[in-house]
Amino acid sequence: MSKSVKDILIEMKNLSELMVDLAYSALLFNSRDAAEEVIKLENKVNRLNYEIKKESLLAARSVEDAEELTALLEVGEAAESIANSAKDIADLVLKGIKPHPVFKMVMEESDEIIVRVTIEEGSELAGKSLGDLLLATRTGMRVIAIRRGESWIYGPDRNTVLAEKDTLIAKGNEAGAELLFALAKNEMTLEDIGCSIE
Amino acid sequence: MSKSVKDILIEMKNLSELMVDLAYSALLFNSRDAAEEVIKLENKVNRLNYEIKKESLLAARSVEDAEELTALLEVGEAAESIANSAKDIADLVLKGIKPHPVFKMVMEESDEIIVRVTIEEGSELAGKSLGDLLLATRTGMRVIAIRRGESWIYGPDRNTVLAEKDTLIAKGNEAGAELLFALAKNEMTLEDIGCSIE
Repeated sequence: MSKSVKDILIEMKNLSELMVDLAYSALLFNSRDAAEEVIKLENKVNRLNYEIKKESLLAARSVEDAEELTALLEVGEAAESIANSAKDIADLVLKGIKPHPVFKMVMEESDEIIVRVTIEEGSELAGKSLGDLLLATRTGMRVIAIRRGESWIYGPDRNTVLAEKDTLIAKGNEAGAELLFALAKNEMTLEDIGCSIE
Repeated sequence: MSKSVKDILIEMKNLSELMVDLAYSALLFNSRDAAEEVIKLENKVNRLNYEIKKESLLAARSVEDAEELTALLEVGEAAESIANSAKDIADLVLKGIKPHPVFKMVMEESDEIIVRVTIEEGSELAGKSLGDLLLATRTGMRVIAIRRGESWIYGPDRNTVLAEKDTLIAKGNEAGAELLFALAKNEMTLEDIGCSIE
């Protein structure tokens, strides 16, 4: 098995999950930018799925190989299908369809909620990377996108450095969202949260 | 708009997301139980989607209504389609297909990983509810299923009380997984993590 199939599948899985979150947030905050990014990512996922099929067919040398590879192909198909569902949601935003008011309530009362928060002056979040902040571990909130001025960063990683005035789109639960708001609005410091894992 | 459409959609969204996590974990840990639960949940999601369609059709009174309701129907369809993708993955486990070794690597190197950990004697996790523990907020790890003896609890909520010997299936990032392992193995206490949010 070439290393590339593994990497392709990791990317597909990450992208498909990011796309679902982005699509819901695009609808929630009526963001054409986020919706357009979902469409771009969907094209990428489709290409990656094609690559997985090609590489898998080349890798199969025996019946056992073929059986095991079936599961990989199926996971690739599932990721593509999840990506397509995300695209369908994003399409609604691009068509300009106004979501029913009930949708906002649905998003606010789900097990996992999506919130938008801007980093204010003096917040400790500014100038540090997501990895250094251990933001997901400390607050349970995963940043899925960042709006910086006119541009966007989608699917930031642990090396992404936050800046003052960044608007974060993040996913997690209510208690975590409160912590994130307090940190971003400089009403709380990392020391207040005080996790000793540094 | 009746309250029920909102509640149905929240349930569909929660279930479809749970199903994807459960399906991946079923494949990762070769768990027929988890795979069978995915199949059961898929039937439930299909029924819920039928209900949403019915309620939406009854609720539409004007062209504007109809346009807004379209978005709700589409979100319902997307959730059902995500649920179907999860079912396809679960089917592999039920068919007894052994996943390619690369799949385990994919799961271990994704942005969000799924881990399995058993609560050992003396761990502070035992006897407390997920809500009281603020586990997701403190560690970033979301418990998606709990194996207790021969039975399973799927999609536990904040009122679910953990017990010694429970095996948790949880999703989050690597740093969070380390914290969860340390808590479950009684190598660390909640005070060590020391979040001041209590």
